[in-house]
Amino acid sequence: MRIDIITSVPKLLESPFSHSILQRAQDKGLVEVVVHDLRQYAINKHGQIDDYAYGVGAGMVLMIEPVYKCLMRLQSEREYDEVIYMTPDGDSFEQKTANQLSLKKNIIILCGHYKGVDERIRQHFVTREISIGNYVLSGGELAAAVIADAVIRLIPGVLSDETSALTDSFQDGLVAPPVYSRPADFKGMKVPDILLSGNDAKIEDWRFQQALDRTKEKRPDLYKKYTGEE
Amino acid sequence: MRIDIITSVPKLLESPFSHSILQRAQDKGLVEVVVHDLRQYAINKHGQIDDYAYGVGAGMVLMIEPVYKCLMRLQSEREYDEVIYMTPDGDSFEQKTANQLSLKKNIIILCGHYKGVDERIRQHFVTREISIGNYVLSGGELAAAVIADAVIRLIPGVLSDETSALTDSFQDGLVAPPVYSRPADFKGMKVPDILLSGNDAKIEDWRFQQALDRTKEKRPDLYKKYTGEE
Repeated sequence: MRIDIITSVPKLLESPFSHSILQRAQDKGLVEVVVHDLRQYAINKHGQIDDYAYGVGAGMVLMIEPVYKCLMRLQSEREYDEVIYMTPDGDSFEQKTANQLSLKKNIIILCGHYKGVDERIRQHFVTREISIGNYVLSGGELAAAVIADAVIRLIPGVLSDETSALTDSFQDGLVAPPVYSRPADFKGMKVPDILLSGNDAKIEDWRFQQALDRTKEKRPDLYKKYTGEE
Repeated sequence: MRIDIITSVPKLLESPFSHSILQRAQDKGLVEVVVHDLRQYAINKHGQIDDYAYGVGAGMVLMIEPVYKCLMRLQSEREYDEVIYMTPDGDSFEQKTANQLSLKKNIIILCGHYKGVDERIRQHFVTREISIGNYVLSGGELAAAVIADAVIRLIPGVLSDETSALTDSFQDGLVAPPVYSRPADFKGMKVPDILLSGNDAKIEDWRFQQALDRTKEKRPDLYKKYTGEE
């Protein structure tokens, strides 16, 4: 899989892709992440890529031309399954979106900045608009990193234990059960006895019941879906 | 405002806080972001901070002791309004959560990793659990960066134009209207005439109507709330 990220602040994305799971996935050749500096496609020698929006007080906007040039360059080099634009009014990013995207070959993620990108880019070139949640960020860069992370970790071979992602929250429609590790007693705060029992079947039952209870308490929406009460 | 982030992968957070708005906010002295390396509180000289979860196949967990030691150290130095744990089953992070948090003085954000943190930390020390969306990330670091970004940009003086954040999506209950910038005609793709009219009042009306229409189309949930149809 190849992910091309187009941004006006490429340096912001340096460290998230240079450590931990995202780095290892690239080292293993399972994914290629290429960050493109929009300023390399600036409209003039001053490196201009943004300008005032039409209309008083509407803020700064990423201009159509630099984004267009960058997209054309990439699309002349290979076929892309999706050109994704990160925006607060996009479709809500869910675990199933991550599952879908993890099966794609090449995707482009365009990061908005300031008040966003010229609307014509959205109308003519973007194939999918995604929001990571109901809040506003100073740019699409962190949102792009979030999506890349959620997607890349699902690619087979990225996580060391292949069952790992399958037991995550949401993958079976429930949130994950509580987890505990050593020591069993820390300053009087104890691990539940059942987990120390050595009875794997009973522990598995307990974990499932905890996942159910926790989903019912913390995420009644998911619980309703899971039990078919909807 | 001060934000302390506790993480097992501190380097992952280097670049998001060293560029753009988050860097400028720190340079102006409006916010202090301190990233703490959990390994400095490891339980042994091998730097151990995680261990197997009790129960077969449950993955790795951040241990209670290193997190406890780090929290105690910070809380002995100053009072914290919140100890936030980033977890997929936490309360959904919304723009209003960002508004609330932007008024706090000191907050701690604890980043989970692998299968999460020992449940006893959540039970006894965490005051608030937050999820940035219905998807799983390889760690809480990007989620913490997302929250910090959403919160910091709301602190007065951080954004150059103080009205900027107020016209964002969600702040008035609607998503933002489309934005356009120069040129008015790019390869036949044109900016709507109204925006070139110079009539500020009409442009303002148009922008509001576009925001309404777009909210109705893209986010019927928000539209219902806005119009009181709920």
